[in-house]
Amino acid sequence: ERGEMAKSTQLIDNEVFRAYATYTAIVLLKMMLMSLITAYFRITRKAFVNPEDTASFGKGESAKKFLRTDPDVERVRRGHLNDLENIVPFVGIGLLYALSGPELSTALLHFRIFTGARICHTFAYLIPLPQPGRGLSWAVGYSVTFSMAYKVLKTAWLL
Amino acid sequence: ERGEMAKSTQLIDNEVFRAYATYTAIVLLKMMLMSLITAYFRITRKAFVNPEDTASFGKGESAKKFLRTDPDVERVRRGHLNDLENIVPFVGIGLLYALSGPELSTALLHFRIFTGARICHTFAYLIPLPQPGRGLSWAVGYSVTFSMAYKVLKTAWLL
Amino acid sequence: ERGEMAKSTQLIDNEVFRAYATYTAIVLLKMMLMSLITAYFRITRKAFVNPEDTASFGKGESAKKFLRTDPDVERVRRGHLNDLENIVPFVGIGLLYALSGPELSTALLHFRIFTGARICHTFAYLIPLPQPGRGLSWAVGYSVTFSMAYKVLKTAWLL
Repeated sequence: ERGEMAKSTQLIDNEVFRAYATYTAIVLLKMMLMSLITAYFRITRKAFVNPEDTASFGKGESAKKFLRTDPDVERVRRGHLNDLENIVPFVGIGLLYALSGPELSTALLHFRIFTGARICHTFAYLIPLPQPGRGLSWAVGYSVTFSMAYKVLKTAWLL
Repeated sequence: ERGEMAKSTQLIDNEVFRAYATYTAIVLLKMMLMSLITAYFRITRKAFVNPEDTASFGKGESAKKFLRTDPDVERVRRGHLNDLENIVPFVGIGLLYALSGPELSTALLHFRIFTGARICHTFAYLIPLPQPGRGLSWAVGYSVTFSMAYKVLKTAWLL
Repeated sequence: ERGEMAKSTQLIDNEVFRAYATYTAIVLLKMMLMSLITAYFRITRKAFVNPEDTASFGKGESAKKFLRTDPDVERVRRGHLNDLENIVPFVGIGLLYALSGPELSTALLHFRIFTGARICHTFAYLIPLPQPGRGLSWAVGYSVTFSMAYKVLKTAWLL
């Protein structure tokens, strides 16, 4: 199976690409976890947004009172959206960066710092930690993506 | 044209990658369709969010009444956001999965189930179907992406 | 460094791929800029959403009044979400398109028009320009992504 793949592409045999694949899978799984946390808070706080989701709590007015916003649910949702806004650029620019021929050690440094920063960001958002905890972890991840984008544009530039 | 491409990469000649390209284009087009459905409901329900969008309905107070939320518009927007939250991980992890050397039949199974589940999810959200219709279609797509991430991490693991 | 990379993959030596990398980095950086603009408006308008973000303005009621929505902040956030909805499909479908063997001139035309349209869209949203300025720039970017998806499906089709 790896043999046949190797004939058409050795991407996955490239160490930088393997590192990219590992960290990208980790941060995307972390982002997907936010859906489960949202569902957990929606169910425990009984705070839903779709009428059909409250049908199991009874009919009419008795179910309608669960159609409400809850501060904990909204907090997780903001964390999820912030993940989308920051992890999407990491995945896209990171792929190009991994294909732009960086040193393995430099690439690992970028991927590790970004992943660590986004995990810290999630804890800072959900606990929540006092500022500038969340702000700093956001800025670190942002800077890593920016640094990778600089390397991509320097290597690939063709306008 | 294909000849020159083939010299530098045979990715597109790899059957698993072709399947990935096909299903990724389909789910991304499906996600893009949500923008058109939102626009359709905004126009037919006359429910806008930007003052400049209501200028054609007249000036001042007569236009201002169309700056409102509408349950149908909000429903499509939630479906669109749910697509972003779930299709982004599929596209990112799916690419790495396609490059990790899976059997074509296994890969097709993953891509087909995910795509079917997300199409079902959209219908379940927009009709709307009673639960657990939407919940189940969401969970099926989620599980497929999780299964692909497992294969990626097993193949590429380099921390 | 490029030497070792070249052994495992020449993707970055392919001109169409280099053009894709350049324009993808540019539109993703443009999307990331929306975070900074949101932060700028949140701070200058003193309009926050997380209680921990207003702690530096004092305690209790004096800080609570800054937990509010502001029209300028909400406008940037809508522009940011619209970027996510449109730039994610461009990045995903664009990668497959770049690997599907298009002519360099055709590919450049697609990438340039999309990037120009999204930059126009941001200006149209933030100034704001009267409609159909924003609507047209959205439709142009949408059509480019659709055209690339057509080429991808024609080349890769394997269901």
